[in-house]
Amino acid sequence: MKKKIAVIGLGSMGLGMAQSLVRAGFEVSGYDTAPERAESLCRLGGKAAETPALAATGATLVVVVVVNATQTEDALFGNDGVVSALDRGGVVVSCATMAPEAARALASRTEAEGRSYIDAPMSGGAARAAEGELTFLASGPEAAFEIARPALDAMAGRICELGPEPGTAAAFKMINQLLAGVHIAAACEAVAFAARQKLDLEKVYEVITSAAGNSWMFENRVPHILAGDYTPLSAVNIFVKDLGIVQDVARSSAFPVPLAAAALQMFAAASGMGMGGDDDSSVARIYAMLSGVTLPAAS
Amino acid sequence: MKKKIAVIGLGSMGLGMAQSLVRAGFEVSGYDTAPERAESLCRLGGKAAETPALAATGATLVVVVVVNATQTEDALFGNDGVVSALDRGGVVVSCATMAPEAARALASRTEAEGRSYIDAPMSGGAARAAEGELTFLASGPEAAFEIARPALDAMAGRICELGPEPGTAAAFKMINQLLAGVHIAAACEAVAFAARQKLDLEKVYEVITSAAGNSWMFENRVPHILAGDYTPLSAVNIFVKDLGIVQDVARSSAFPVPLAAAALQMFAAASGMGMGGDDDSSVARIYAMLSGVTLPAAS
Repeated sequence: MKKKIAVIGLGSMGLGMAQSLVRAGFEVSGYDTAPERAESLCRLGGKAAETPALAATGATLVVVVVVNATQTEDALFGNDGVVSALDRGGVVVSCATMAPEAARALASRTEAEGRSYIDAPMSGGAARAAEGELTFLASGPEAAFEIARPALDAMAGRICELGPEPGTAAAFKMINQLLAGVHIAAACEAVAFAARQKLDLEKVYEVITSAAGNSWMFENRVPHILAGDYTPLSAVNIFVKDLGIVQDVARSSAFPVPLAAAALQMFAAASGMGMGGDDDSSVARIYAMLSGVTLPAAS
Repeated sequence: MKKKIAVIGLGSMGLGMAQSLVRAGFEVSGYDTAPERAESLCRLGGKAAETPALAATGATLVVVVVVNATQTEDALFGNDGVVSALDRGGVVVSCATMAPEAARALASRTEAEGRSYIDAPMSGGAARAAEGELTFLASGPEAAFEIARPALDAMAGRICELGPEPGTAAAFKMINQLLAGVHIAAACEAVAFAARQKLDLEKVYEVITSAAGNSWMFENRVPHILAGDYTPLSAVNIFVKDLGIVQDVARSSAFPVPLAAAALQMFAAASGMGMGGDDDSSVARIYAMLSGVTLPAAS
């Protein structure tokens, strides 16, 4: 008999992850607040459940792929939440990016109910989710990893196991998002400034990507700007949220983050201009508007 | 008979470049305001001149490797400056990072005196200067490149020729320095914040360098922080200067650069704390002081 896994949250990421689990031979029961997404799961070989609790009933593992800590808390402990429905000794794999303290609190409540919790924020887009090639930063008890590892292996190209404490992986993810967000905003600032100086932007891309000014994000996002294509691969609002987490945690620990703060303002401006759902490289369009610069249009 | 080249400015970069030119078979005549540096050049097979003009007399090429636009102007047009001493039709290769407008102005004055000007900011440290493995961003008239190319080849591992107008290379360099400066400050912010979260910093380095938060500067500079070794490979004051150029140019073109501005404040703080001559990763020590965090000490 196939081992049952519940997937809560069937957006582009969750659906792809469910697909990878189906392909690996698991019985996948999914739930989403939008019923049409659960129907998509059925077409991919999974089953749709009417509540999170029904998805988790008879499962030893539940993967929660929602947007933030509040939605995760609701999926775990809200009406028809998964934790009490999950097999005793079962494992929650929680994938939303959240503050380390929030992850620790959710883990404690999960453990108090006799289940365990792996803090497992991920990176990689929808395509890699469907291919089973995500990267997970993960921390939690070794006994929980023993139960979760086959499912994680089915969804991941790479798993960074970061220790036994939930919250550690969340902290690593937060550090990565601080850098990623600053680097995207810096790339947008630099490219729009180069346009203001009337430089050949294709040449700027060529020079910078082989120079000391390069970053993973510059290399990955600037082609969107050069193509004038702001179709969301990763949306502005992700960084409004994730740099917001950085700000909250930094302020609560009296740690100054002037670079992350400056970057957040630019993502907030892009969101405020109505680009929250567009690609995060849209920050370049804010710089262009603020300076009268013309960036490449879509061809 | 060997072709004569003058090198003005014999700091760690200029001396290494002179050494590469000697090795390539040029007669090198050097000048520095500090006479002991010219003596170092003699030990490497060059000759010391008593003034910039004497260094340039009988040369078709002069390489100017001083700190900024003001020093470059002084070397070219001050008392005993090189331009009027250089062979008519000769070429100035100007290596200091400066505002594009400053490079254009110096080029115009050089051309008005019947010589030509290549705007050639470089990157790479003292070791690569001595090995002849610098990277040059270079722009200037093709006829000037024809004269300068053998010398540039002797000094460079890579030459990005960016067009016929002096100022273009300066603008590319400015864009690179904007990114490089922001990425160093962001790396320092992220690592100190990770320390505040009590994360294993070696593990942070390992995770980030293979994740989307990576940058060339993160990968290159964070090992200095992990080793607690702030021996200057590239000094804080370089970025106080170069991000200052970014600010000046941005303000004069009414272009907002909030990320570069935030980064500059951190370099200014490091300089103000007496670390201006230390490695630019010293910005991490400012974050540590501002938050009560302890970073690794030198072993």
